[in-house]
Amino acid sequence: MKEFELIHRFFDGVGPWRDDVRLGVGDDCALLRVPAGKELAVTIDTLVEGVHFHQGADPESLGHKALAVNLSDLAAMGAEPAWATLALTLPGADPHWLAAFSRGFSRLAAAYHVQLVGGDTTRGPLTISVQAHGFVTAGRALRRDGARPGDLVYVTGTLGDAGLALRGIEDIPAPAGCLPYLQSRLQRPSPRLGEGRALAGLAGAAIDISDGLISDLGHICEASGLGARLELERLPRSPAGQAWLDETGDWSLLLSSGDDYELCVTVPPGRQPEVERLAAGFECGLTRIGVMEPRPGIRCLRADGTELEKPSRGYEHFSS
Amino acid sequence: MKEFELIHRFFDGVGPWRDDVRLGVGDDCALLRVPAGKELAVTIDTLVEGVHFHQGADPESLGHKALAVNLSDLAAMGAEPAWATLALTLPGADPHWLAAFSRGFSRLAAAYHVQLVGGDTTRGPLTISVQAHGFVTAGRALRRDGARPGDLVYVTGTLGDAGLALRGIEDIPAPAGCLPYLQSRLQRPSPRLGEGRALAGLAGAAIDISDGLISDLGHICEASGLGARLELERLPRSPAGQAWLDETGDWSLLLSSGDDYELCVTVPPGRQPEVERLAAGFECGLTRIGVMEPRPGIRCLRADGTELEKPSRGYEHFSS
Repeated sequence: MKEFELIHRFFDGVGPWRDDVRLGVGDDCALLRVPAGKELAVTIDTLVEGVHFHQGADPESLGHKALAVNLSDLAAMGAEPAWATLALTLPGADPHWLAAFSRGFSRLAAAYHVQLVGGDTTRGPLTISVQAHGFVTAGRALRRDGARPGDLVYVTGTLGDAGLALRGIEDIPAPAGCLPYLQSRLQRPSPRLGEGRALAGLAGAAIDISDGLISDLGHICEASGLGARLELERLPRSPAGQAWLDETGDWSLLLSSGDDYELCVTVPPGRQPEVERLAAGFECGLTRIGVMEPRPGIRCLRADGTELEKPSRGYEHFSS
Repeated sequence: MKEFELIHRFFDGVGPWRDDVRLGVGDDCALLRVPAGKELAVTIDTLVEGVHFHQGADPESLGHKALAVNLSDLAAMGAEPAWATLALTLPGADPHWLAAFSRGFSRLAAAYHVQLVGGDTTRGPLTISVQAHGFVTAGRALRRDGARPGDLVYVTGTLGDAGLALRGIEDIPAPAGCLPYLQSRLQRPSPRLGEGRALAGLAGAAIDISDGLISDLGHICEASGLGARLELERLPRSPAGQAWLDETGDWSLLLSSGDDYELCVTVPPGRQPEVERLAAGFECGLTRIGVMEPRPGIRCLRADGTELEKPSRGYEHFSS
């Protein structure tokens, strides 16, 4: 019965109590109310030790990230977050680990007014599945299949920062002061929820970049039956990303590394002024990087107009 | 990118397509519609290899059981099932395993008109998290805290069958013909969805018996601030359960073994005739086993009126 004590001790009262929660953690099911006129957006994502994070990874960051990657999926639909459930498989019941995990999860949940409404704690290899629920006005969700030829392609924030953090400190030709920033980009990504909701009435299609720009924009291309042309010089990068590029000339960091959780959206050209006015209010920024085209595949052009050949392995899978 | 192929190959079109699914598997989120006047019931449960099932367990049965244990939670709320998501962590991509797992999941999903609307496939130790969503008329859900003193306690089906199957074939003093039945009770439990919905307007409280009767009725007692008195002779058992009891005289099989996924409900005495009329239509049966009392703890009385002393470890946790 330790399981129940665990759940109560660390996961009761995670996130604010919301009026639309009729019954939260502690019964066979949670009971929830979806507002009239809203559709329910649901997503589930799992983090596995040894695959998504190393043994001994900071539990507070894991708590943050396990929720953040799911909120990022809600952001990519233009949804307003509401509730989460947590299925936590643990090798043992370490109260310090649990307290830190719960703290990381709770802080992000509180920041976005998300309530933890249910869960399951089991013993086994460390595996964290979070499901997030949000609302979107009926018919206004940002889907992957909403891009049209001529739509402009935008991304929020900067690309490649989490990828740099993953390469290890000693391998990065970046200013030393950038390291905490890069670690935070990898371990505590910011879901672009405000940006996604603001773009929901304007963008044609959206996705969050979890597997790298080429791979994820590739999903928009596939779902919309299109291709895209990107201008490499326009790809937004942090000072650390620029330093890497200066040193290596390797665009694949920006094109193919994952875990950034930025949004990639397509915007009809007529909406460009409105979107760019709106984006002036985005703290993370929004950068136009290319255009959707009828021809399948993603082409990456250098400033001189020459095309980059297959920038990475990920690229091949989605370019034809 | 194998991950996407996997998901598409084995999990597209699992369960019927429902009209309330605006967008299913394949985008950042599923988009779903909850009918007006209904509350959303949500539950999540995880099965871990080596904890909930042995290495090499039949994948078709696992697919069934992973969904069944969640549908059982919906049944215990009196909810009508609608959608499921699946987070599947796998050591490798074995197409035979995946096909069989998907088949077991799909058949049960089809039987209860449940659509798989999303999921995540990751590499790692075999871990299966399913989240199920259902609807319940606002204010009519069966909660754990709805029992009152004097309420009669009922259970569906028979108790201890999954527990017998777990003890291993050679240890069961049961007719040989019972073994396939016992295995099926353990590996392919039937969620009591029809029974739960039928009882939703009549019962005071309900729970599904996953951890054993004493443990789970204990949750109703705690949530309702009550205790209970059970009549041991009334506990429903299969021929195999009766054979075990005749041989061993050990009531703990019926009281404390888990994995049966029967419902335990409390019924106000005034509703007894109506409930028993209704239960005449339950194929699995519904048996009155005791009564809720103001005094905390669960007392188990033999036919001669003497009280059974602590029938199992699980008992201690919830008897005081």
